Amino acid sequence: MELETEMILHPFSVHLDPVSGIMDDADNHIERYLSKVADIFYDKNAADGMLKENGDRLVYEVYEKKIPQRSGELQFCSSITHPGKIGDEYFMTKGHFHVRRDRAEIYFGIRGSGMILMEKENGEHAEETLSPGSVVYVPGYFAHRSVNTGAEPFIFLAVYPGDSGHDYGAIEVNGFNRIVVLKNGRPEIIEKKNLG
Amino acid sequence: MELETEMILHPFSVHLDPVSGIMDDADNHIERYLSKVADIFYDKNAADGMLKENGDRLVYEVYEKKIPQRSGELQFCSSITHPGKIGDEYFMTKGHFHVRRDRAEIYFGIRGSGMILMEKENGEHAEETLSPGSVVYVPGYFAHRSVNTGAEPFIFLAVYPGDSGHDYGAIEVNGFNRIVVLKNGRPEIIEKKNLG
Repeated sequence: MELETEMILHPFSVHLDPVSGIMDDADNHIERYLSKVADIFYDKNAADGMLKENGDRLVYEVYEKKIPQRSGELQFCSSITHPGKIGDEYFMTKGHFHVRRDRAEIYFGIRGSGMILMEKENGEHAEETLSPGSVVYVPGYFAHRSVNTGAEPFIFLAVYPGDSGHDYGAIEVNGFNRIVVLKNGRPEIIEKKNLG
Repeated sequence: MELETEMILHPFSVHLDPVSGIMDDADNHIERYLSKVADIFYDKNAADGMLKENGDRLVYEVYEKKIPQRSGELQFCSSITHPGKIGDEYFMTKGHFHVRRDRAEIYFGIRGSGMILMEKENGEHAEETLSPGSVVYVPGYFAHRSVNTGAEPFIFLAVYPGDSGHDYGAIEVNGFNRIVVLKNGRPEIIEKKNLG
């Protein structure tokens, strides 16, 4: 009986600071430092060099509430990708598939601007820019990663079904096929197979 | 085969104007005029009087994209409740349950301020205020209605599971048990059974 009671969600509200992206009353604060995610960037030497010269840096953060992972509920989080580059490649998140592959995700832009990279296991891909006031719809079956292509923090609200689950492993094996780099003064999407 | 293809969602983005709440490329624009929703307000005479004296008025609007109504997808809309009162009662939406009662809903405040009224079929209730940058979580089993308690449009993004469905009928039979009125210069929640 006690367990059942714990599972019942009561209505609540939280505030997201539009400048910092900090969520009041968050249950979980994830911080990803460069030392821990260096291998997601294409130029490993540039990542190592930055760590040696400038020390560690926060690449991205997530604030979330603890919601039961079941059908019918909605998970939501505040996602903050900091500005920066490894070589010419912009700071970004690891990205993931949903464990339940058909689960979609919605992003709502709050501050800064960036790009959402999406790739299916069959190679199909899509890219959408996200800025304040815009919604990006990530359909099921697409791994998704956010890239900060601007000079200020790239902050958005993410909402996804309660039972989606995160699958980081599948995308870590081969990574995304495309990277986003600063080229001729603006962000450009490049296929890895066309590099070096 | 053609039908299946139509059901496959491709990644997309849309923009919500933060001042008007208008969604670019919306598939559906719902407009609820006072003449059509007058019976949701407590003081029917005040509603009739306003219609006779001032003509019809837009109470609220919704812009939405057409998303397949199935598990895994997410529905989303821009909701705009205009400022105004019928007697002392603030402009509000009809409100609804989800057909699948266990489906939750998330609101993200964009402009103005208001209140989200929530009521279960067993009488349990909750109220949350919503303003820019805040998230309100409406758990399953709660009928939900938004009330504009401010002087400007009350605009928010709503996200809910793809297969939720809208059930307006169940809440129309008895209505919500509480109304929000201007009293002593501020919004106050009053139980209908304590009125006249």
